[in-house]
Formats: sequence, C-alpha cells, structure tokens
Amino acid sequence: MVLKVVGKLPNEKKPYFIKNGEGERYIFDTQVASIVATTESTGDMMEIVQLWGGKGDSFPAHVHEQAHEGIVVLDGRLEVELNGQLYLLTAGDYISIPAGTVHAYRMQSHRTRFYSFTINGHVAKLYSLIGEPFTKFERPPVSMNLLNQDIFTQLSADIDIKLVNSHPTAGLPELAKGSTIPQEVQPYVLESGEGVHLLSGDTVHTLLTTKEATNSQFLALVSEGPKGQAIGEHAHERTNETFMCLQGEMTLWVDGEEFHLLPGDFAYVPANTPHRFRCDAHYTKFFGLLTPGDFEDFFRILGDPYEHPIFPSEPAPYRFDRVIQRIHEIDLKLLGKPPGPPPAKVEEVH
Amino acid sequence: MVLKVVGKLPNEKKPYFIKNGEGERYIFDTQVASIVATTESTGDMMEIVQLWGGKGDSFPAHVHEQAHEGIVVLDGRLEVELNGQLYLLTAGDYISIPAGTVHAYRMQSHRTRFYSFTINGHVAKLYSLIGEPFTKFERPPVSMNLLNQDIFTQLSADIDIKLVNSHPTAGLPELAKGSTIPQEVQPYVLESGEGVHLLSGDTVHTLLTTKEATNSQFLALVSEGPKGQAIGEHAHERTNETFMCLQGEMTLWVDGEEFHLLPGDFAYVPANTPHRFRCDAHYTKFFGLLTPGDFEDFFRILGDPYEHPIFPSEPAPYRFDRVIQRIHEIDLKLLGKPPGPPPAKVEEVH
Repeated sequence: MVLKVVGKLPNEKKPYFIKNGEGERYIFDTQVASIVATTESTGDMMEIVQLWGGKGDSFPAHVHEQAHEGIVVLDGRLEVELNGQLYLLTAGDYISIPAGTVHAYRMQSHRTRFYSFTINGHVAKLYSLIGEPFTKFERPPVSMNLLNQDIFTQLSADIDIKLVNSHPTAGLPELAKGSTIPQEVQPYVLESGEGVHLLSGDTVHTLLTTKEATNSQFLALVSEGPKGQAIGEHAHERTNETFMCLQGEMTLWVDGEEFHLLPGDFAYVPANTPHRFRCDAHYTKFFGLLTPGDFEDFFRILGDPYEHPIFPSEPAPYRFDRVIQRIHEIDLKLLGKPPGPPPAKVEEVH
Repeated sequence: MVLKVVGKLPNEKKPYFIKNGEGERYIFDTQVASIVATTESTGDMMEIVQLWGGKGDSFPAHVHEQAHEGIVVLDGRLEVELNGQLYLLTAGDYISIPAGTVHAYRMQSHRTRFYSFTINGHVAKLYSLIGEPFTKFERPPVSMNLLNQDIFTQLSADIDIKLVNSHPTAGLPELAKGSTIPQEVQPYVLESGEGVHLLSGDTVHTLLTTKEATNSQFLALVSEGPKGQAIGEHAHERTNETFMCLQGEMTLWVDGEEFHLLPGDFAYVPANTPHRFRCDAHYTKFFGLLTPGDFEDFFRILGDPYEHPIFPSEPAPYRFDRVIQRIHEIDLKLLGKPPGPPPAKVEEVH
C-alpha cells in the first residue's frame, strides 16, 4: 500500500506525517527553520523544528524562561554554547537545555542540520517572526533575509525567548563526549550512542533523558535495530509519541495508514492512536520524543540493562511477559495480538 | 517497476547493485568490511569497501606501493593519520591517499562508517585474510576475531599493503578543514562541501579530485541536487562509473532496470551500459567514482564554475549545448532524446 504523503501540519491534535524538509518553513540568514510540530498540532504537548544552514550561520545567546529544549544533530558540525562552555556536536549527539540555561549555536559545516524541540514553553512561533515564509526546500547559497536582532526586543510576551549577553570560555570547542545523564534537571551533552541502554529482543533503546533530568516532562530516546518484524499494534491513553527517522528506513502504521520513514522524516502519534512499526534496513535508528516523561518505565520493564551502544548479533529474549505482568503501571493498551506471532511481512518495496 | 535487489557481486565486469551493508562481508575486531567492488566485478578498474565499527576500532599504519586510496566518511568521527599528521574526519569529508603515503585510522564514534576505494593496486582481498566471513549485517558489540597483525607478514605479494612504523605528531587531531586540491599527486583532505564546484541546472557537481591530483587514474566527485527530473539516457565507451548515495534518495535506471538508492546503497555501471538517474529527495547527495579520470572534462564543459557548496534556489541554465558542441572530446554517447523534454516521471514509491 502506497499512501499519499501528508505535507501539512494540522490545526488540531491528530496524527500526521511530514517528509524530511516539508514542514512549515521560514528563512533567516541562509538558515531554514522547518516546523514539524506546533502547539496547535500537538495539543500544546511539544514543539519541534528542524533547522538547517551553512557554515557560519548562527543564533545569538538566549534563554527560555519556561521551555526545556533538546537538540539532536542530524548532519554536519554544530557548535553549541551552553552556560559559557563551547561544545562541538556531530550527527547523533544530543544536548539538553533546561529552562534558564544560556545557549547559542554556530553552524560549522557547509550543511549543518538538527532537530530542536521545546516542551513547556512556546518558542516555535518565533521563526515566523524573525524569518520570511520559504517555499523552497533547500537553503539558498546566499542570505535572502539577514537576521535582525532588533526583532527580539519587540516580541510579544507569549514567545518564550530572551536574548542575553554571553561570555563563552575562550578556546576551541570541546568535541561532545558526554556519557552521563545528571540526577537532576541541569544541562548536559550526550555523544551519539551514549545514554541508558536497554536491550529488548533485537533492539537497543537508549534513553537520552530520565524522569529526574526532565522533571518527568518528556522522554527522549533513540532506538536502533536490524531489519525485523513489526511490533504489535498498541495505543497509549495519555502518552503522545513522535517518530523521527535518523538512519535506515522504517514502516509505521498509524490508525491503519501505512507510512514509510526515511532519514529526516517525522511522524506524530498522539495519545489514543493505534500504531505499530517495523525497522526495514539492516541498521535502522530513530529518535522519539514522548510526553509526559513517565513512559520511561515501559522501556525499563521491557528492556534489560545493556552496556553496549549496538544491538547484539543474536537477539536477546523479548520480555513482553514482564510488561503484561505490570501492565497496570504502564500507559499501554494492547490491540490485536501482541506479542504473539508477528504480522505477515509486507512485500519489500525498494 | 519494482525490481529484486541484487545482493551479490558478479565474477565478471557487469552492472550490479548492492544495498547498504549487503556486500561480501568479513569481520575483524568489531569492524565489518563489506566489499562492494572487486577486481573481478569491475574488470580490474577499482575496488571499493565499506568499513564500519565502533569507538577504538583501528587499522595500523601501512602503505600501498601501487594503489591510490580514497576515503569518504559516511557516519561518525574517524581519526586518520596521514604521513604523521592526525585529522579528525566527519561525515562527507574526503581524504586522498596516493601510493606510498603512510596512513592509519582509528574510529572515534560508537558507529563510524566510511567508504574506502583503491585504484591501480589490489587491496580488497586483504579483508578475507585478516577477517572471518560474516553472515550478519551489523557489527557485533564485542570482538569475535581480534586483528592479528602477524597475518600482515604472511600476505602474498599480490596484496598491495605493508605495515610500517609510524610516529604521528603528538596532540589532538585537527578537525578536517581542507578546501584545496593540490596541483600534483600528493595526500590531501577535503572537508564536506569543499572541492571544485560546477553548477549545471539545479545540480552542483563538486570535484574532489583533478587529473593532476590523480594522474588521471580516477575521478571522485559529489553531486547534490533537489528533487528533479531524470537526466537523459547515455553511455560511455571507456568510462566506468559508480553511484553511492550519501543522503536523500535517487532512482537509477541501468540497462532498462530500475534501482532505488537510499543512503549507503551502491551501484556499478561499467562502460557501454546505458543509464540515467533522478534525484528524488529535496536534498539528494551522491558520491561517484569514475575511471579513468579524464571524464572530469565533461563536468567542466557542462557546468559553470560556482563558488557555493549548495545549489541555488533557482536553477542555472542547463548548458548541454556546450556538451553537444564538444561531444567529440568527451566519452559520452547520447541515447534516447537528451537533453530535450525529460521522460515522464515514474510514480513515486515510498
């Protein structure tokens, strides 16, 4: 089944799918902000923007007073200032920026691209104010619309951003090598592949956040698996979920509709939406942002602690029995016949 | 038309297609070498291996006496020693290693992946000797087969590799920032997006080599374009061509067969094979290795010198008229009706 791509954000909270680069787009400098999740489209649960630009494109130092931001780097080298410390991030690195943290970025590659999400504060509307609507998909080689910092002093109070002076530490940025999630809400950096690894069957789920580090507001995780079988159809009563494919390819079924995700593609699956998915490439990696954050418990019950950043050559046991036993603790409704025999494999389409 | 994937290398020079990770695979340490082009499959024109592994996986300092090697980084951070100098490469960076250059690498990310090709010397068979055949597709988390350096002293003379002692410069590796191709055959590094940009229509072709820097043995280039129309069908009498998709997606028609390339997928198109292709994602980037190197002339005649690393928002003229005028200088046979109205767009398959 080949379905039409949904290229628009809905004005109300419902499932949708955005192909890489096809969000609501604005341009400033030679940067493009493609908004893939808004207050409206997610029922105020999260905002997500994909940003891309060229070497030297930057964003000045600022704070969000309410919003907790997270950044996942997709391509290139991204210099981020975090409370005065400079880090150089590359693809797959994650940075957690709680409310009140002074931060800024500067793109250091000819093509630098990342996802930025914000929870508990409204920021995404900013791009429609500092940028111009952009009908193309790739950034232009020369600036069409220089970022005018005066705009920041004229923003209405409902946009949670304030420019600040910053005095970053002198010297070259440090290559992001962080491997530890703090026990409380504070800024941190995780290198690609670092986090809390939980192994379930043939898939490693790597938590990039914990309830302690996000005040249970959200869960960010990366899942990596080989070409496999679809997981059973399920839904959540309170938990809103997103799928952002980072590498490989995957199929997602949402409310019966089938979507094929390639790197950079995005899907939003709000609470009470039946869904299931399957990894289709030999190495498939995807990023998930879930609200609220207590769905972390599910992955800790399903998965076994695991020390490696890559799944094993032979799958571990799939301990869905533990999930069934503790189903009353988890926001999970099973539909269909999980975790029994998986659905027949759909014929491969390349 | 959806075709069966060809997952095997032929024993003779003919067109073939290898999906990401599905080459002839060997394992050493926790590294996988997936051979996608051999002396046999290319009629001795080139060898290409995709290598991937985890943090700390390395290859000792060595030289090739005949072979000119090139490396294109696909994922992660790769430290390369080049005649004593350490460089840190990230995705899209290119490094040229002429015969006689002392070089070594160390993977610095949990998932580091690159293409290595060799021209004018036989190296690829090495992996079947230092590694074990590997039936899986993703590297194991723990080493199954430690690299035994003694093997290198027992290699037959037809494998062009010699281990050497090296004394790399002390200190942290330098982030690859090279932007210049030397005027003669010598080692160099190009940062992603750097090289000789030539703009043709909506596509930027970036030469990573020149005839001077490779002694005309091969041409390496990166092409970047938006979702577009297929170029006209053509063939070359002497030029052998490869397609390695780096980002986005593309369709390739080879001798009438249709292949859909995603990142990491590989296709070999030897001389005298009709072919054409189309970029299918808003940003599609692919790497090509062509032998011999004088096909560079085609791109210089077709394209206009261009200073930017990204294609313009509005296409430049498509100067196929210049190609037609000088067709006798170029190894190009036009088939069908280029460059007139492009073929009808094939229904999209996602």
